[in-house]
Amino acid sequence: MALDRTDIELAHRLADAAGAAIRPLFRADHGLETKADDSPVTAADRAAEAAMRSLIVAERPMDAILGEEEGEREGSSGRSWILDPIDGTRAFISGRPIFGTLIALVDQGWPVLGVIDQPILKERWIGVTGRPTLLNGERATTRPCRELSQALLATTSPAMFDDAQLHAFEHLDAAVRSTVLGGDCYNYGCLASGHLDIVVEAQLKLYDFAALVPIVEGAGGRMCDWSGDPLHADSNGEVVAAGDAARIDDILDALACRGH
Amino acid sequence: MALDRTDIELAHRLADAAGAAIRPLFRADHGLETKADDSPVTAADRAAEAAMRSLIVAERPMDAILGEEEGEREGSSGRSWILDPIDGTRAFISGRPIFGTLIALVDQGWPVLGVIDQPILKERWIGVTGRPTLLNGERATTRPCRELSQALLATTSPAMFDDAQLHAFEHLDAAVRSTVLGGDCYNYGCLASGHLDIVVEAQLKLYDFAALVPIVEGAGGRMCDWSGDPLHADSNGEVVAAGDAARIDDILDALACRGH
Repeated sequence: MALDRTDIELAHRLADAAGAAIRPLFRADHGLETKADDSPVTAADRAAEAAMRSLIVAERPMDAILGEEEGEREGSSGRSWILDPIDGTRAFISGRPIFGTLIALVDQGWPVLGVIDQPILKERWIGVTGRPTLLNGERATTRPCRELSQALLATTSPAMFDDAQLHAFEHLDAAVRSTVLGGDCYNYGCLASGHLDIVVEAQLKLYDFAALVPIVEGAGGRMCDWSGDPLHADSNGEVVAAGDAARIDDILDALACRGH
Repeated sequence: MALDRTDIELAHRLADAAGAAIRPLFRADHGLETKADDSPVTAADRAAEAAMRSLIVAERPMDAILGEEEGEREGSSGRSWILDPIDGTRAFISGRPIFGTLIALVDQGWPVLGVIDQPILKERWIGVTGRPTLLNGERATTRPCRELSQALLATTSPAMFDDAQLHAFEHLDAAVRSTVLGGDCYNYGCLASGHLDIVVEAQLKLYDFAALVPIVEGAGGRMCDWSGDPLHADSNGEVVAAGDAARIDDILDALACRGH
């Protein structure tokens, strides 16, 4: 079943609903911080996911849903809505407005639509396979990067890497111009808009990466796993995004030292 | 010579001038990125610092100036304006709106006034010794933190630490609830507003930390070096900020493992 215009409209409405749930809870965690079993993060996550799920159940009853908070709901259409209500929990609770809501539509395991929504700054990237990526309705494009030594690299935290992955990441880190930490999904939006050249991460779940693929690729970049294979529902969570697709082999070569 | 109302007004005008210089260059670095000797970062840094310096020279000719880009201008008043036009260069060039302009007034080496200005989000923290810290005119206050195991810790990048400092930082990291990377000066603003509990950094220059002290302390927190001594123009660049001053000893104890 192909993706149509109403799917894109629904994705926007899902992001609107999540943002409406999240905005009142941003930087409002002061008094709630001590409630160990009902943290404000969980409250914002749950409220945003619940709002999105109820829309999907009502409008796409045959589609499956996978959300970070409430898990999986089976479907019969071969399509799944993949939801991460707040990607960048630590940024959210730290008061940084660079977390994001991630929404993806996956067809037979392949991401075909993705949204990164930053509800405080009201920035929304949307990507659909075969179409140009948009940031707030304007076309977003990655930038060229002629060689690895010119590249600006981002990763949320090296703590996500196992020892072998860390060794590989440090190899890449040494080859690029500069590396910036933190950022979560916002890094992929910045890459799609031509401000970053590479994002490398690992241990990502499907709800962390599915939305990113159509956004980065529709902006002219490329995403794959650390072996160069396209990202799919069964990928192992190792993710590379390159703004300039011509740099993918250099990045994979640098990461390949993991094996030795 | 004591600080007076006109100093506070001047600090706001300096931040206004820096922001006006920086805003047009944010995310505008696309075509300029390849100019190795005149990078857009440097252009934004230089333009913002030049705008601030010309105001200070005109209005406070007897005060010294120390800026990250143009260095030192001597004075005769015992007072110095300490300027970092863009703290968080990597965040700036990555398209993240959480870098900041830092402005401090230092009297006989002691920070007495500080500004963190985020010109894209239009967020401005200002602190003056003995007065409550303000964020956009509203009082900012740190939050209580009953024990280290509840604390949210931030640091821009562990790459700033030498081996002994990294060992100490990892000891603290293991003792807290959660750690978030990236953030630069914005972390100290978030701490002053009660969203973070601890920031620990090293290798900071006077222009990196002078502005932070009156902001954090006027919000109810405490800043010191890793030995517990107050921060001064001659400090060694090791910085601790605690939202809850009662946690300082716990933090210093955790960092003290460096010596062993």
